[in-house]
Amino acid sequence: MIRIALAQINSCVGDLKNNYYRIARSIALAKSRGAQLVIFPEMATTGYPPEDLLFKKHFTDEVSEINKKIAHLSNGICVIVGTIEMSGHQKPFDSALICANKKILGAYHKVCLPNYGVFDEKRHFTAGTTPLVLVLNGLSIGLTICEDIWHDDGPLNRLLDKLSLIINLSSSPYTTTKYKERLRILKKRALKYKADIFYVNMIGGQDELLFDGRSQVITKQGKVAAEAAFFEEDLLLYDCLMKPRKKDSKRSKQPKIKYVILNTVMAPGSKPVRKQKAKKIPLIEEIYTALKIGVHDYASKNSFQKVLIGLSGGIDSALTALVACDALGRENVVCVTMPSKYSSKGTKKDAKILANRLGARVIEIPIQNIFHKFIVDLSPVFKNMPSDSTEENIQARIRGVLLMALSNKFGWLVLSTGNKSETSCGYSTLYGDMAGGLNVLKDIYKTTVYDLARWRNERDKKPLIPGGIFKRMPSAELRPNQKDQDTLPAYPLLDKILKWYIEEKLSGAKIIKKGFDRTVVNRVIHMVETSEHKRRQAPPGIKITNVAFGRDRRFPITNRYRG
Amino acid sequence: MIRIALAQINSCVGDLKNNYYRIARSIALAKSRGAQLVIFPEMATTGYPPEDLLFKKHFTDEVSEINKKIAHLSNGICVIVGTIEMSGHQKPFDSALICANKKILGAYHKVCLPNYGVFDEKRHFTAGTTPLVLVLNGLSIGLTICEDIWHDDGPLNRLLDKLSLIINLSSSPYTTTKYKERLRILKKRALKYKADIFYVNMIGGQDELLFDGRSQVITKQGKVAAEAAFFEEDLLLYDCLMKPRKKDSKRSKQPKIKYVILNTVMAPGSKPVRKQKAKKIPLIEEIYTALKIGVHDYASKNSFQKVLIGLSGGIDSALTALVACDALGRENVVCVTMPSKYSSKGTKKDAKILANRLGARVIEIPIQNIFHKFIVDLSPVFKNMPSDSTEENIQARIRGVLLMALSNKFGWLVLSTGNKSETSCGYSTLYGDMAGGLNVLKDIYKTTVYDLARWRNERDKKPLIPGGIFKRMPSAELRPNQKDQDTLPAYPLLDKILKWYIEEKLSGAKIIKKGFDRTVVNRVIHMVETSEHKRRQAPPGIKITNVAFGRDRRFPITNRYRG
Repeated sequence: MIRIALAQINSCVGDLKNNYYRIARSIALAKSRGAQLVIFPEMATTGYPPEDLLFKKHFTDEVSEINKKIAHLSNGICVIVGTIEMSGHQKPFDSALICANKKILGAYHKVCLPNYGVFDEKRHFTAGTTPLVLVLNGLSIGLTICEDIWHDDGPLNRLLDKLSLIINLSSSPYTTTKYKERLRILKKRALKYKADIFYVNMIGGQDELLFDGRSQVITKQGKVAAEAAFFEEDLLLYDCLMKPRKKDSKRSKQPKIKYVILNTVMAPGSKPVRKQKAKKIPLIEEIYTALKIGVHDYASKNSFQKVLIGLSGGIDSALTALVACDALGRENVVCVTMPSKYSSKGTKKDAKILANRLGARVIEIPIQNIFHKFIVDLSPVFKNMPSDSTEENIQARIRGVLLMALSNKFGWLVLSTGNKSETSCGYSTLYGDMAGGLNVLKDIYKTTVYDLARWRNERDKKPLIPGGIFKRMPSAELRPNQKDQDTLPAYPLLDKILKWYIEEKLSGAKIIKKGFDRTVVNRVIHMVETSEHKRRQAPPGIKITNVAFGRDRRFPITNRYRG
Repeated sequence: MIRIALAQINSCVGDLKNNYYRIARSIALAKSRGAQLVIFPEMATTGYPPEDLLFKKHFTDEVSEINKKIAHLSNGICVIVGTIEMSGHQKPFDSALICANKKILGAYHKVCLPNYGVFDEKRHFTAGTTPLVLVLNGLSIGLTICEDIWHDDGPLNRLLDKLSLIINLSSSPYTTTKYKERLRILKKRALKYKADIFYVNMIGGQDELLFDGRSQVITKQGKVAAEAAFFEEDLLLYDCLMKPRKKDSKRSKQPKIKYVILNTVMAPGSKPVRKQKAKKIPLIEEIYTALKIGVHDYASKNSFQKVLIGLSGGIDSALTALVACDALGRENVVCVTMPSKYSSKGTKKDAKILANRLGARVIEIPIQNIFHKFIVDLSPVFKNMPSDSTEENIQARIRGVLLMALSNKFGWLVLSTGNKSETSCGYSTLYGDMAGGLNVLKDIYKTTVYDLARWRNERDKKPLIPGGIFKRMPSAELRPNQKDQDTLPAYPLLDKILKWYIEEKLSGAKIIKKGFDRTVVNRVIHMVETSEHKRRQAPPGIKITNVAFGRDRRFPITNRYRG
């Protein structure tokens, strides 16, 4: 028997000292729990993705030192840790370092480097070329890193029929569909290679990305034997009862494969560990949890204690405030209401009710006087030109200035409140409601905003969001009787078109063929295509779909294609 | 003899119709000038880089149609055009299409895909695998695309000793050192392969990138035989007198090389063309021209007729206004001065003098009253807290709101005026002086700003920028007696440190070893590292150095490494 510990930790990019500390703590814990092997996620030492930090020699040098320090902790336990190693080329390897007896015994270098979606790994890494087998007390273990296992023709293929176990170190960005897809792939691989798979994943937030953990043991029969927590640090222990197969010990070494042999007798695990399974949660709760982690980690990793939210009385800012209170505690959330003469009685009242129910600090700063001054001082230039979106934007931007003033004075992080439907269509004011350090709902369509708010309201005995916020027609309230639907199609329709266009990358013609109105589809696409310049200056937001705005979707601003 | 035309054109990303029109016009012109072969830049049909547009099937389908239309124009002339072709994989090929007799005869697919700096070509393209030789009236011509020729072990290596001519289609982003480096490489290749090189490069601006043209003919002796214009569309004609070498016609085809044979007798060129050489210009004029093209193309390709600049009376906005007037004509430049109580008499006076000399429209909107209203309305929250950068930022942001209000009302493009020294250190206000659609000087260090302004002033008999603007100590004028040097090291010192750190990627320790003060170096690095969040929300700027902020330099916001 061998007891294996999967240490899913929350590494922070660039925080080498603290990442080392987390790794050291997990090694100690794994030892104390009788594990003989402890495995960490991809790039546990550096955090993922460190991007161009990898081109700084002093950075990679420091990581090399950390690698040695980790090896020193490997007495009485074998440690496999995700890290980087210099390659002799300009770009490092994405590595799985094998340590035991206080020594680095060898390393596997990631072969498959993803260079699509949010990934730029061919920019940053030298690809490995050689599969590696760790023969641990006679058991043949194939090492892989993240993408390696996603490809049918990945490096494991060269080890077919040679393995008892497969280890995969991952920092796999969360999306709402990733878990299911991952599980499908892992099961497929387990069956194909007839080997148990030990999958260990990062947890936490890093700018736009989240890592959801849920590290797993998949048996060679394709069953989930154990699973670690969702979006929490965890140490998953598993007693692997597999015995060395005859062919494991008899087989001679093959060329073009690296071998690391380790036969140290390690302390056997004490009484068998209980098999741990993560609890199943509904999708909407999963998304809510993801947003909570995103806010928590962005704030804490960037050293913000408190956050500031402009509360309009609408659903987006209400949900953002709720997520923030759940993530950071209501004592760390400040709400500011900035009513204008166009703010309805309903929204003003609902904003107050919500703020009171949340128990967060509320500040009120009406914008009417400042707006008036802008209009007066601009009137010699504007003369008698009719009001248009200019005056609407001025109001939104005054609110942006006030939010940033409070942020500057008190050191609060501004959370902006726009959703994906608005972000897609450019239905937002640059430097206005778009102002902030993190846009919590940037990847959440308006219809999902309602679903999340409803779910959160139903979770507690007493709902926090007043009913009026759900019932009122969405409005920016920047001119009399304005409604979002004056400019945008109804959200249920809009969100469907956007999903086809942005996530499925269908052409307008194909979307129309699905039964949507030609004029509406063309108008939506036009709005998406002509608002790239706004999105380029938007704050980062938490990615939860397959195609979020940001690294995922790279379009030129100067682009005359209207397809 | 064969007359070859290098058509350096200004393609716009996504503007398939107009790009086709430019190509058609050049083909007609080349024919009328007696050329038998006309060559276009890399991706002349689509513009470069179209980024994720390449993942839209309807886009690549439309390009395929354009490719066919171009082939139809190839009667009596051989056309080699940079375009894309579907590969049978998800990602297209970056292709050089060979057309003659109204047919597509074949295509070379780019082998070396750059994936560093601003390039993401491994994200977007399928790499070609096979070299191609075009045998044109018995002459063996090797085809390459951009990066292919930059590598010692590029695809031409497989054609060693087989070629009479080499053609390179490029869309090679401009930097101040690129021309020299490119020429060195082209000469080296000409000598190595004993072949004349026909290098044709894109011109124009695309978001942050510029393409400088200067297409060239390099003889097999490594001499520049002809050169096209700098930053202008041009058709460079060259009479190649080379005769088919015996081995060209005798040699049998080799495996793993594509051949396209074309023996059509084409109309010979009329009287010999005069050899054209571009005039040499000093570096500072080159940079100024680059900025001018950057402004012109960003405005025109994004359909802006007029631009708006906040004129402070400082050197940055003065230079930006000058560049804009030279790029678009003074009738298309609007300046707005937004003085506050901290604006000195000198700057206010100089801003007015400059505006008058430029002859551009000037608007004045003092910000004092609006600022006062903000302070009054914030005072219940700020209570008696001392003034700090908050109040400074409010002033900068009021100016941002006014600029954007004018932009919204009149449809003018706002040019922001920050320089690279400020951008590096975060010495700027997000949504304030950073507000705008294009940041003209984003990649120009402050010391170079002065050099450019001085050069531009000396060019005319009567200098446009008042002397006071050069003499006055740089200041943001956001509090009494403020000077940039209260916060930043003196610019000549700062700019040197920044160049080592950003462009040469040296560590702090190495910069200190070069003789810089430890405290100063560490302070500068700290400022650079902690202002990534601002840069991420900055407008695009014109790249002229090896490492500009933008696609070139990808750092996480959440990054605890301070090296």
